Amino acid sequence: MKFCSQCGHPVNWQTPSGDHRPRFVCPACHTVHYQNPRIVAGCLPLWGEQVLLCRRAIEPRRGLWTLPGGFMENNETMEQAAARETLEEACAQVEGLELYTLFDLPHIHQVHVFFRARMVDANFAVGEESLEVQLFHEAEIPWPELAFPTVGHTLEYFFKDRLHQLYPVRNEPLAPLSAIPITSLNKPDR
Amino acid sequence: MKFCSQCGHPVNWQTPSGDHRPRFVCPACHTVHYQNPRIVAGCLPLWGEQVLLCRRAIEPRRGLWTLPGGFMENNETMEQAAARETLEEACAQVEGLELYTLFDLPHIHQVHVFFRARMVDANFAVGEESLEVQLFHEAEIPWPELAFPTVGHTLEYFFKDRLHQLYPVRNEPLAPLSAIPITSLNKPDR
Repeated sequence: MKFCSQCGHPVNWQTPSGDHRPRFVCPACHTVHYQNPRIVAGCLPLWGEQVLLCRRAIEPRRGLWTLPGGFMENNETMEQAAARETLEEACAQVEGLELYTLFDLPHIHQVHVFFRARMVDANFAVGEESLEVQLFHEAEIPWPELAFPTVGHTLEYFFKDRLHQLYPVRNEPLAPLSAIPITSLNKPDR
Repeated sequence: MKFCSQCGHPVNWQTPSGDHRPRFVCPACHTVHYQNPRIVAGCLPLWGEQVLLCRRAIEPRRGLWTLPGGFMENNETMEQAAARETLEEACAQVEGLELYTLFDLPHIHQVHVFFRARMVDANFAVGEESLEVQLFHEAEIPWPELAFPTVGHTLEYFFKDRLHQLYPVRNEPLAPLSAIPITSLNKPDR
């Protein structure tokens, strides 16, 4: 941020009076511009024993597999955001959404939230942001080709929890991506 | 938003190409300015049978009682935000935070998240944004003087769940405040 979005004047990076941390502050109109983490909401769409994954057509992680999800918009709930993204990316309708995993990613100012969800029917198709959409049994999951750690963790928890049919809601922080081999991040399209 | 925060040019309200909804878009540098819901994180601080509440010293809802909480900041987790707000508003240290309630408030572009938390000791004090801080037994909760519906719902769930010592994580949407009597919203300081 370089300019005040209210008056167009260049902003300063300073700690407002009565605050504890630096913000972008406009010296002309005195607006304080707060910046906060964003929520990425997604689904774990289930069809019988199978899970629906999308191969990404866009960056970041183009060509890798993900659960359908994306940035939550104003004027919607997390559940609505997750269902909307599933419709947009996988052309799949879901119901019975249950909150399942919440990952804090403080280094990128995001919280990733996934819902378990039943597919309404077996219909799905390639959405605008996907190269492929496909149902996978547990043994078929392309683990080395998953786009995001939060997707991998959600799938791991799900297959473990499914053994006992108990799905506790989980919230945990995730560290930066440095542990992921660069070869899988840069994998070209197949 | 009236001006582009990247280049200072006046922005337009239009649907970017490839998008489905209108955004603030800069016609000069082509930056799309996304606006997303914000997370308010708070604690239900517990000391034995008692719950710690704060009487708000700031608007909105000045003079009414709340669980300590506030906007999640960049570079922190939801749990860290909840603990920080508890320290700032009630000068109380908490541990053993467990995710408990998540309320979607789509009409104000917020998600409120509360954690159950044990107070480390019986120390608490009036923080900068509080007029009073006090421990309450269930029978003493000032129900008509609670600042926010999400606080009331969290307390109601807690006292109900405590009977069975089972605290499932809950996620639900909340409607606008119109159902709340205006007398309690405008209650003056005591």
